[in-house]
Amino acid sequence: MVEKLQKLLEEKKYSDVHELLEGINSADIPSIFEELDEEQIVIVYRLLPKDVAADAFVELDSDMQEKLINALTDTELKSVLDDIFMDDTVDLIEEMPANVVKRILRAQNPADRKLINELLKYPEDSAGSIMTTEFIDLKENMTVEEAIDKIRKMGDDVESIYTCYVLTMTRKLVGIVSLKDIILAKNGVFVKDIMDTNFVKISTLEDQEEVAKKFDKYDETSIPVVDNENRLVGIVTIDDAIDVLQEEVNEDFEKMAAITPSEDTYFKTSVFKHARNRILWLLVLMISSTFTGTIITNYENAFAAIPILVAFIPMLMDTGGNCGSQSSTLIIRGLANDEIHFKDIFKVWWKEIRVAVLVGIALFAFNFVRIIIQYNNMKLAFIVGFTLLGTITIAKSLGCLLPMLAKKLKLDPAIMAAPIISTIVDACSVLIYFNIAVVILGI
Amino acid sequence: MVEKLQKLLEEKKYSDVHELLEGINSADIPSIFEELDEEQIVIVYRLLPKDVAADAFVELDSDMQEKLINALTDTELKSVLDDIFMDDTVDLIEEMPANVVKRILRAQNPADRKLINELLKYPEDSAGSIMTTEFIDLKENMTVEEAIDKIRKMGDDVESIYTCYVLTMTRKLVGIVSLKDIILAKNGVFVKDIMDTNFVKISTLEDQEEVAKKFDKYDETSIPVVDNENRLVGIVTIDDAIDVLQEEVNEDFEKMAAITPSEDTYFKTSVFKHARNRILWLLVLMISSTFTGTIITNYENAFAAIPILVAFIPMLMDTGGNCGSQSSTLIIRGLANDEIHFKDIFKVWWKEIRVAVLVGIALFAFNFVRIIIQYNNMKLAFIVGFTLLGTITIAKSLGCLLPMLAKKLKLDPAIMAAPIISTIVDACSVLIYFNIAVVILGI
Repeated sequence: MVEKLQKLLEEKKYSDVHELLEGINSADIPSIFEELDEEQIVIVYRLLPKDVAADAFVELDSDMQEKLINALTDTELKSVLDDIFMDDTVDLIEEMPANVVKRILRAQNPADRKLINELLKYPEDSAGSIMTTEFIDLKENMTVEEAIDKIRKMGDDVESIYTCYVLTMTRKLVGIVSLKDIILAKNGVFVKDIMDTNFVKISTLEDQEEVAKKFDKYDETSIPVVDNENRLVGIVTIDDAIDVLQEEVNEDFEKMAAITPSEDTYFKTSVFKHARNRILWLLVLMISSTFTGTIITNYENAFAAIPILVAFIPMLMDTGGNCGSQSSTLIIRGLANDEIHFKDIFKVWWKEIRVAVLVGIALFAFNFVRIIIQYNNMKLAFIVGFTLLGTITIAKSLGCLLPMLAKKLKLDPAIMAAPIISTIVDACSVLIYFNIAVVILGI
Repeated sequence: MVEKLQKLLEEKKYSDVHELLEGINSADIPSIFEELDEEQIVIVYRLLPKDVAADAFVELDSDMQEKLINALTDTELKSVLDDIFMDDTVDLIEEMPANVVKRILRAQNPADRKLINELLKYPEDSAGSIMTTEFIDLKENMTVEEAIDKIRKMGDDVESIYTCYVLTMTRKLVGIVSLKDIILAKNGVFVKDIMDTNFVKISTLEDQEEVAKKFDKYDETSIPVVDNENRLVGIVTIDDAIDVLQEEVNEDFEKMAAITPSEDTYFKTSVFKHARNRILWLLVLMISSTFTGTIITNYENAFAAIPILVAFIPMLMDTGGNCGSQSSTLIIRGLANDEIHFKDIFKVWWKEIRVAVLVGIALFAFNFVRIIIQYNNMKLAFIVGFTLLGTITIAKSLGCLLPMLAKKLKLDPAIMAAPIISTIVDACSVLIYFNIAVVILGI
């Protein structure tokens, strides 16, 4: 497809290009544009079917959007912006430099400009910042025929017609009604008789992560957003909720790997920014891990006498770290998915202790046999074995307790993940190891 | 709400219970049931409004579903099952023990029983296994009025009426048409004139993860599933796609923390199973990390002569591991989100190398100052600093290359995460460290 397109562009067969683009899905445009040069992009964009052009514009990354806007005339820009929903326009404005923002705002009519300025005021990550303001509103005493008439009139301008919102004269939200119920209702039935008054709603300042969770829990495709006085100000649609879910998951992955989260994709983040996002945590963890080094220094005599002791340090540290990160990952995810709550803390701890004993015994046994075979040293086998048991128990305890305590303290549990748990467990394992060694070997 | 419910149940005020449950959201039932005892659950379930009961049943976990089915009469069971969509029935059957499955199948009419048996044949994780078979099918030469009539007739029995599928006489899928376009069309217009013939579809055997990604990419709320001959056999709806996305994310988190993934929640997994899911990887990693120990043993003379060398091993290992897991996490996520592809491998590597140099210089500088202040030992400062530079470069290289190679080899990149990268980097860092030490100190 792309090769054919490039060929036609080189031969300037623009009507063939237009034909080729007929019926293309807007979601496929960004990957096609990546293969074209800037001039070709502008040509192809102008040749796109009108209904595809606006959808495609929203899918592009902000660099390409900026380039396109700069290439379009004011009239063309206005026509694109008219077909974009309000939430996407606001997203666009947040990404663009000041001169482009000015052009975008100039292309809006005064009422929309006012609305955009209001939407821009909602805090980042709030429901207000991801909602759209185009929806179908009905009145309680409309009949289903009147409702359908209104839907037909407004349908082209709203993001979804499948859920309609029933408002009072003062725009307070009293019920929602699905198009399904409207279509399936008998003629003459009133909207108030089929509307659902027990619906899920969100407030403008609610955190977007909570909003996304509500979509998941209640299986809705859109949820109304109301202000303090229960007036309907917008709706959040499921496509935005999915984006939020994915954004939050990516953030958690990054936090759990000791990276300061970034909203940009891997390639769009500069080398310098990548380094900056990673150095802070590395430094913190590095300083913390020197503590383990200090402990080792205190037992210089022990390993000066029996150097083989040092050889087990990496294995003990790694195993402790892995055990801790297994537990912390499960608990962090459980907390994120609302499967685990703070009140379960002792239940979780008791479970992890039992898992630790089972895991500990298995690794004890394996190591015991290995050390006997390799070194034929019973004392060493016991030292390493007991250290494993102790380390694993501590690792699994910290791995479950720290994320839950973080949650209780209103911190993000995701920071209590593998890197930090490993660092703490390292110090513990070395301390246990040398203490047991001193006792058993009588150094 | 729950306290009030419990009080009413104790006082056997069942009509008040019924009233209290009026207008309850089915998604809130599972958390309420968790607070009730088994007998109360059955009573409350019978008092639920009929339309809520079936939806609530689907939301319950399988233990509770089993208990409920055992408490229900055959007639009650049939009435619940009649209101459940086919995909949920199949999910239910997959979770239940044989005797319950028999009762469920007996409650179905012969046609549905045949269909269920066919659906059960699709491989786990395929599109066929998550699709539902209830949808609205139209013919090309229907008018929009005829289409609306058909939708009204069939609407109660299908999961969604908002996308309708246009089939030939032999049930081949030729187009899709949204209810929006039907509603907005003028009377007398034919379905074929408003249907979309350039639509996204999936085949029955496509992996569910790919299916979920298509939902995300194309912003659809349902996607048709066709067999080899392009006959429509079912549809996948967005709620199922979201479940798949979350399931896959949880699986990735677990794999990346060296846990064999489990489909059950934390609490539903037994202690024994938790231990089993964690031991395998711990053993593999433990055995691998003994290799690092062996390297250390080879340099016994070095640290016997200068014991302080040992004190830096934990810091070097931890920093290397953290650097590697930062890179591998970013790459694994980039691959999962389709932002990074194998063809980018050299671009990614070059980026990571530059990040490694920046990070390495920062950590070098910090450590250099610290060691000079703490030990006043220039040689030691250079040994540790150069080791950091080398380790970080290797860690970031392996962290990006291994997940990408895994992807190329059709392995899951998520296994090349922090635990395995750390273990490999550990060995490298110790090797670099002692080699540099031997050279600089001339041991």
